[in-house]
Amino acid sequence: MLNIIRASLLSFVDFTEEELFTIIARLRPMKVARYQHFLKEGEVCHDMAIVTAGAFRTYNNNQDNDAEYTSDFIFEGNWIGDYTSYITGQPGYNNVEALEESEVYMLSRKDQLELYQTFRKFETLGRLIAERLFVELIQRKRDFILKSAEERYLDLIKMRPDIFNRVPQKYIASYLGIQPPSLSRIRAKIR
Amino acid sequence: MLNIIRASLLSFVDFTEEELFTIIARLRPMKVARYQHFLKEGEVCHDMAIVTAGAFRTYNNNQDNDAEYTSDFIFEGNWIGDYTSYITGQPGYNNVEALEESEVYMLSRKDQLELYQTFRKFETLGRLIAERLFVELIQRKRDFILKSAEERYLDLIKMRPDIFNRVPQKYIASYLGIQPPSLSRIRAKIR
Repeated sequence: MLNIIRASLLSFVDFTEEELFTIIARLRPMKVARYQHFLKEGEVCHDMAIVTAGAFRTYNNNQDNDAEYTSDFIFEGNWIGDYTSYITGQPGYNNVEALEESEVYMLSRKDQLELYQTFRKFETLGRLIAERLFVELIQRKRDFILKSAEERYLDLIKMRPDIFNRVPQKYIASYLGIQPPSLSRIRAKIR
Repeated sequence: MLNIIRASLLSFVDFTEEELFTIIARLRPMKVARYQHFLKEGEVCHDMAIVTAGAFRTYNNNQDNDAEYTSDFIFEGNWIGDYTSYITGQPGYNNVEALEESEVYMLSRKDQLELYQTFRKFETLGRLIAERLFVELIQRKRDFILKSAEERYLDLIKMRPDIFNRVPQKYIASYLGIQPPSLSRIRAKIR
């Protein structure tokens, strides 16, 4: 598990061993059972957590049509939570559910803010993570406007092939914004 | 103009006079005529700019239906540009147009990155700006899903009354995602 956390942190910033230790010392482990929620809509997200084993999906409920909308899949080395709620302290809209037996390491907002005070490279990490979240959100919004479901499916195969081995078809369809039969048709056509 | 820039920077981080000077020394002034574009879709955004006089709108083109979609109005003390393009160095999707005779002060990406190296409080500023952009984008996305056009109109009057004095009705309608006649109906109903 340490190697996953180290590699993830070092992918953003060139931390020293001592700095890595300072960060990792603040993390609290938690097991999350399959289909258990790490976070539910309406809750305040007090902890972001880095996944060291397992898989999660993030989804939102659309009250209008009673539909679920899968917004992301998160595997080892990436973070789960509701970053907006974490920053603002207000109740969030994200549901975060384990798709496998999982293990995560949590960082409380309080500890995050203390780490920002402690050393500047952690502040760089915070900036880079916020920038990436913003860029990814814009990109996903643009893809939905500009690309067909088939194009988005082909992008997903290319960029994140791991998803197809670990995630049920119905959630991939929900992520692409289509019904499962439409996904089957796209797959059949491409095959 | 200095007061506007100072107040804007100090609203994020408690900079010293010397730090403010270090930042402001990097800014380059530019006049933007009414209806002139600061940035167009397909260009790389090399500079973010803080508005010291005037007003701008940001809009995106939707190729599917040939429609313009106004995503933001920016007045004195706030920043214009395409932050995704600025960060990634890739061509952006934002069009940024002056609605009045305007003046802005530009910060190049190169200077921004050098300032991050120079002192840590600037890194804090970068983190807080990225966080705010992310939170606002999520909030706007949620509002479009959860609220009616009328509710979004009432929110806008409450949160940003200045818009109604400075921006043509057709752009406010576009920002709310409705046609101008629908905006007139909402206004008549509320009046």
